[in-house]
Amino acid sequence: MKNELSRTLAKETVSHVAKKVMLEGWVDTKRDHGKLTFIDLRDRTGKVQCVGFQKMADLSVESVVRILGTVKTRPEKMVNTEIPTGSVEVDVESYEVLAKAETLPFDIGKQELDLELPTLLDHRSLALRHPKVQAIFKVQAVIIDSFREFMKSQDFFEFQAPTITPAVAEGGSEVFEVSYFEHKAYLTQSPQLYKQIVMTAFERVFSVNKVFRAEPSITTRHLTEIVSLDAEMGFITSWEDVRDMAEQTVKYIFKQLEEKCKAELKLFDATLPSVIEKTPSISLQEAQEKIFKKFGRDVLGQKDLNPEDERDICTIIKEETGSDLVFIYGYPTRKKPFYVYPNPENPEVNEGMDLLGRGVEWLSGGRRINDYNQLLDHVKKWNMDPEKIKLFLEAFKYGVPPEGGFAFGAERITMQVLGLKNIREAVMFPRDMERVDFRLSTVENEK
Amino acid sequence: MKNELSRTLAKETVSHVAKKVMLEGWVDTKRDHGKLTFIDLRDRTGKVQCVGFQKMADLSVESVVRILGTVKTRPEKMVNTEIPTGSVEVDVESYEVLAKAETLPFDIGKQELDLELPTLLDHRSLALRHPKVQAIFKVQAVIIDSFREFMKSQDFFEFQAPTITPAVAEGGSEVFEVSYFEHKAYLTQSPQLYKQIVMTAFERVFSVNKVFRAEPSITTRHLTEIVSLDAEMGFITSWEDVRDMAEQTVKYIFKQLEEKCKAELKLFDATLPSVIEKTPSISLQEAQEKIFKKFGRDVLGQKDLNPEDERDICTIIKEETGSDLVFIYGYPTRKKPFYVYPNPENPEVNEGMDLLGRGVEWLSGGRRINDYNQLLDHVKKWNMDPEKIKLFLEAFKYGVPPEGGFAFGAERITMQVLGLKNIREAVMFPRDMERVDFRLSTVENEK
Repeated sequence: MKNELSRTLAKETVSHVAKKVMLEGWVDTKRDHGKLTFIDLRDRTGKVQCVGFQKMADLSVESVVRILGTVKTRPEKMVNTEIPTGSVEVDVESYEVLAKAETLPFDIGKQELDLELPTLLDHRSLALRHPKVQAIFKVQAVIIDSFREFMKSQDFFEFQAPTITPAVAEGGSEVFEVSYFEHKAYLTQSPQLYKQIVMTAFERVFSVNKVFRAEPSITTRHLTEIVSLDAEMGFITSWEDVRDMAEQTVKYIFKQLEEKCKAELKLFDATLPSVIEKTPSISLQEAQEKIFKKFGRDVLGQKDLNPEDERDICTIIKEETGSDLVFIYGYPTRKKPFYVYPNPENPEVNEGMDLLGRGVEWLSGGRRINDYNQLLDHVKKWNMDPEKIKLFLEAFKYGVPPEGGFAFGAERITMQVLGLKNIREAVMFPRDMERVDFRLSTVENEK
Repeated sequence: MKNELSRTLAKETVSHVAKKVMLEGWVDTKRDHGKLTFIDLRDRTGKVQCVGFQKMADLSVESVVRILGTVKTRPEKMVNTEIPTGSVEVDVESYEVLAKAETLPFDIGKQELDLELPTLLDHRSLALRHPKVQAIFKVQAVIIDSFREFMKSQDFFEFQAPTITPAVAEGGSEVFEVSYFEHKAYLTQSPQLYKQIVMTAFERVFSVNKVFRAEPSITTRHLTEIVSLDAEMGFITSWEDVRDMAEQTVKYIFKQLEEKCKAELKLFDATLPSVIEKTPSISLQEAQEKIFKKFGRDVLGQKDLNPEDERDICTIIKEETGSDLVFIYGYPTRKKPFYVYPNPENPEVNEGMDLLGRGVEWLSGGRRINDYNQLLDHVKKWNMDPEKIKLFLEAFKYGVPPEGGFAFGAERITMQVLGLKNIREAVMFPRDMERVDFRLSTVENEK
């Protein structure tokens, strides 16, 4: 039966009524009704019901089959409005097993995979076949792709940021060391300095790249390997230009998710954050004052918002304006990296900003110092070794316009949009302190 | 003068004749003609000539300026047909220096940057401002983006392959070790096993990801950090399906380069490889026979093509068919990785293939083993530890269709398309055995 007909995909069956088709896919579910066997055949486009003879009851779930049959419309009362192919079924004439599946360690045919995350990770290939797990990565692919699309529409140039870096400028133990021939190198914690360098030549740049954090924390928010979405732009007139670009980027992503991921969002009962025409921007101090006024918690003068503050200020802004998003600016200069631009009128605070959404940080960015001497001065004040960042510093010697940028993690946005409980769910192969594919301790015990 | 007018980009001046404009950019070149000073102002869209008064002669090259002026058409005999804005110039009324450039270590105003590569790398930020260096990365961005575009058009799903991996299945010293908390981990050499896992769930997948090679080689073709373009597809009927998808991908990339990178290709006097309707496919043995017949070199029975063979067979195929590309298949099974599918009619050779272009390898791929027991058998024959790839092996237990895929490096294609002499030119921040931003020995001496 091979190659007589070319393959018809599940979702295409609805336009092949009364025609003979060849389908290929996985046996998603199987119902044995005596003389008849009902199979949901799954391929990359979805599922379609196939009605076969008794012998098909021998097929094991998840086996790969090739089916030859005829598409028929279902009787009206049998139509399933829940799936796109619910108005048809395929009458099986013959079938062939392309690959037989062994007995599964757990049932993946259910609507909800009520298994612990470690089990899903230990059997990742199987978990990835589940529609709800797939939905997470479809949403993530749209987030990443929409970021690229929007950046390109705004004339940003995509570059490839390096992963291996030399000695780390700001020190810190939270960096992974690599044995690099006879030398030591490190995994990048951020493309920050590289994107600024590239911006000095291309004006507007973005990158989608991995960053690595060796934080010895094992919470529901920590990963060691993250996909970072980074942008940097020159010729700004103030930090608000950067904020506005970040706002438009996030709104564009939401719009694309709304259009392209309806079914995926529905699987998680997820609604996109409410946005208003102009996302509110308030200073750290204003945020603290609002929190005090509303909840009576005195956090005035604190150098940053703590997690409780972040939740509270989001609640307040939502009530006041209807927006699930809020920009916070005006952080103390000395609490942020050396390259953040101090407010010229009050150098104690800087022109960096965070975007909070639904109670947590979504994105960070702001204006950077573009004047070479001011940068050198900060390097000194921050007790850094200029020699270790001389490639970066040189870029600012030869004429750099006022500039800024922003960055956010693809996994965190995915988690927030879908309301996932653990950020590991938003990574196909999550890496953390205890796991690289499998639990590290397990792997070593087995050696 | 700030904000009275919004910024006009260099290339937009031609549609603003007789209008007052505000331009921002870099002083690309400066010609002092006594009472008049001519400046080429550069921004992300190109250059435009500005005619200013004597005082502008003080501006240093590469300084960032904001210019207020009026766009005028040039007298006919002064029109420069070489640049898109050559029909106009801007009469400067006032200007402001946004960032003064210090004296450059070398002249970047020339059409050709005739400097040694180490100098260009040591001063990377400055080199990246040169149009010819920028052209390389514009071409590369189009290559990577076209790969993604074509994959998506063929229903491939983009996933993020991991960078940090556990113990390496095939061993080998050419892998970088990472200190991972109390454990050892490694930098991925290829997303091969992961893309196969993800394919078993999504059918057609692709990724753009970094791979790392710790080869202690310092040639013009070696990098330690590479951008790999990877694809994998299920439900193939033979290895030719994979080959055809690879061929279409490469042809699509060429087409996009032709449309979008005319100016960049011209800067390098580069012509895209000639392709014909159906790229020739010949077996290793046929290639060896052709080489013997044409050049009298007896390489029959060799397990692979050496660099001289690759050049010779490309010459022969070009003469015979006009194609700069040729697929070679039929390599010995035992010389290739365990997962490559052996030809069922002659298991001594496999169904892997390489695409050669202009004398070198461009892409590799082929059909993979999809049967679990056959895979286990190969794992044993290749003396591998199944425990180290159990995540991969499990994916094949539960029904995997016939499948295959391919991969190629973005830098190598960039190098080949532009005819670059050294692959490091095709990387913004190349990493090799001796260099991570700067020469490693230099950095350590300075400590």
